Amino acid sequence: MSAHELPELPRGFRFAACYAGIRKKPKADLTLMVSETPAAAAGVFTRNLVRAAPVDRSARHLKKSGGLARAIVCNAGNANCATPDMDAVAKRTADAASSLLKSPKEQILLASTGVIGEPLEVGKIVENLPRLQMALAPENFRAAAEAIMTTDTVPKMAFASVETAEGTIRIAGMTKGSGMIQPNMATMLAFVFTDADLKPSALQKMLGEAVEPTFNSISVDSDTSTNDTVFLLANGASGVRPKKGDRAAFQKALTSVCEQLAVAIVRDGEGASKLLTIYVDGAPSDADAKRIAREIANSPLVKTALAGEDPNWGRILPAAGKSGVAFDPMQVDISLNGFLVCEGGVRANFVEAEVQQSMREKESVLRFAIRGKGEGSAKFWTCDFTEAYIKINAEYRT
Amino acid sequence: MSAHELPELPRGFRFAACYAGIRKKPKADLTLMVSETPAAAAGVFTRNLVRAAPVDRSARHLKKSGGLARAIVCNAGNANCATPDMDAVAKRTADAASSLLKSPKEQILLASTGVIGEPLEVGKIVENLPRLQMALAPENFRAAAEAIMTTDTVPKMAFASVETAEGTIRIAGMTKGSGMIQPNMATMLAFVFTDADLKPSALQKMLGEAVEPTFNSISVDSDTSTNDTVFLLANGASGVRPKKGDRAAFQKALTSVCEQLAVAIVRDGEGASKLLTIYVDGAPSDADAKRIAREIANSPLVKTALAGEDPNWGRILPAAGKSGVAFDPMQVDISLNGFLVCEGGVRANFVEAEVQQSMREKESVLRFAIRGKGEGSAKFWTCDFTEAYIKINAEYRT
Repeated sequence: MSAHELPELPRGFRFAACYAGIRKKPKADLTLMVSETPAAAAGVFTRNLVRAAPVDRSARHLKKSGGLARAIVCNAGNANCATPDMDAVAKRTADAASSLLKSPKEQILLASTGVIGEPLEVGKIVENLPRLQMALAPENFRAAAEAIMTTDTVPKMAFASVETAEGTIRIAGMTKGSGMIQPNMATMLAFVFTDADLKPSALQKMLGEAVEPTFNSISVDSDTSTNDTVFLLANGASGVRPKKGDRAAFQKALTSVCEQLAVAIVRDGEGASKLLTIYVDGAPSDADAKRIAREIANSPLVKTALAGEDPNWGRILPAAGKSGVAFDPMQVDISLNGFLVCEGGVRANFVEAEVQQSMREKESVLRFAIRGKGEGSAKFWTCDFTEAYIKINAEYRT
Repeated sequence: MSAHELPELPRGFRFAACYAGIRKKPKADLTLMVSETPAAAAGVFTRNLVRAAPVDRSARHLKKSGGLARAIVCNAGNANCATPDMDAVAKRTADAASSLLKSPKEQILLASTGVIGEPLEVGKIVENLPRLQMALAPENFRAAAEAIMTTDTVPKMAFASVETAEGTIRIAGMTKGSGMIQPNMATMLAFVFTDADLKPSALQKMLGEAVEPTFNSISVDSDTSTNDTVFLLANGASGVRPKKGDRAAFQKALTSVCEQLAVAIVRDGEGASKLLTIYVDGAPSDADAKRIAREIANSPLVKTALAGEDPNWGRILPAAGKSGVAFDPMQVDISLNGFLVCEGGVRANFVEAEVQQSMREKESVLRFAIRGKGEGSAKFWTCDFTEAYIKINAEYRT
């Protein structure tokens, strides 16, 4: 896909990427993403107690600025985490971008991804920011999406637009992550841009609603990164301030962009060959449904069965059983790719070879339904667990 | 090891094993373990919501008998779980053993291990019980330990004795499990026998104390079985009723036997090539220390780093950080095989090659210490995560 094949981008955003020598492989590793005017900004961050400096600093900046941002600076190859000078590095990066863009420091957001515990040479960032500023252009969106990659095998982008009576609003997002974790490079990052005109407080709420059923509903390997970050910037350049019905349409489009990005991460999971979409219905609450879905998604047994194209529901039921959610196993129906494999907690009448055949596809669908009055449901994505995952992660750091 | 090489066994117990055709491979799969007199009995069972019939029935029998048991019947190759007639199968097994041994039904304990969701033909058990009874002998202890294996590569046994003024008490235990889970054969089972004279209520308490720091402190792959069971039988045949100091010595010996068995499971974990012992110190409580240890032990990243002999503490700190336990990452010291690799949350001054070299051994030790006043500590065992694990679990059921 060349740049001119991209859908129309949100107005008023420009991007640039270069190789700053942070990672060993000579591949772009530094990105500058700028809004022409201060944009309303929202952020969602890792819940890990161990957090990288760019996460802490970005959270503080968002608070101090009242939810405004001019730019995001992102580097790949080093997480800027668990080193003595990590906050000094983050501060100097923000200071440099701030003076370059003549913008208040607190309007600079930061993200890093890569190895944890190794010093990040801030000089490499500061020296390269001026040439990034010179190169800023909307059509570098794809180059930016490539520069934030670590073990990802493909850049991940998603786009949407919303038609309103006042005009069109555009949304464009990029993400990286090939697991919640990577070899030493632990991070899921996502940056979403829109030219809608929205207030910071509304934006933060909308991002929270978009993230829960998307980025918070995927798992590659159950590890949580120190750097996970999702930023949403809305600069109002479309001149459209969505209200009521348009607001709902915008939320839907935003969630859709986040879902496309989140599923792209799972599809590109380390060593993954298959995508599994899990639906849970009939749980006491949505949160309970998600707990069940997450246990199934994280079970090494279920994930290896998927790799082996084995419709082994006898691994799925116990995975749900250790979720801590109260349900009667004898009231559970499980289907795989439309074939009922477990009926009322025991083996259904199905032809094993048919279900196996259906599991050879790149994508499978698992439905876990509890009979009764429970109205809690969840949708969750995971991938299979292959020998390639072990190979990628057991190899010594290079 | 031939039978006569076994240490002296607890008196008054006899064992027998045979091939009953439950598993396809012609290898002993049915075991009868009998105490000459009704023994005080204690049991600890899986916390999974999805429980096999032998688990439910054994728990009921222990309650009904007031903690007495004459025999354990155990089959391998089928978990007797998630089938329509699972309880009828368990009941007929107990009935058959009961009339054969002329013992109350509730004094028969049951355990099964193997595939979940496939019918277990009870006839195969009932028809073979009489010849097992004929074959009962103390020296078949090892044959029994072999007959309860599924994907285990070695039988697992442990022995202890306690000298008291009144005489000697002997303890002998066996276990199986090559993971909390196995290909389709999900189960950890352990049977411990002693000729001490103890009341059922005391026995249950002692078993609980022995299980928490041993069987409840290991992980191969974080999955929890539907059939996990630990039984402890004390028949008093030694004539020794331990009190006070002897009681404490007995508890210590019992816990030691359980620890040997539990560690043997991890050592024989599916595809495992290395054992990792994790010590956590300085946590707010012992339970918190265990939560941290468990997160480290279950992290695929940590386990693949162990396989790759990579002293990657940057994976260990975030694993602890997602445990939910509150601690300051900057107050954490981590050592691997005695080498300090993380000091106060950042990289310590160590020679990478030296630590790598030390990790080539079959056993490694990780110490995670939080500075300060916390007194919570835990010891936990895990194994590495290799490509062989995936291969074993992704292969289609045969």
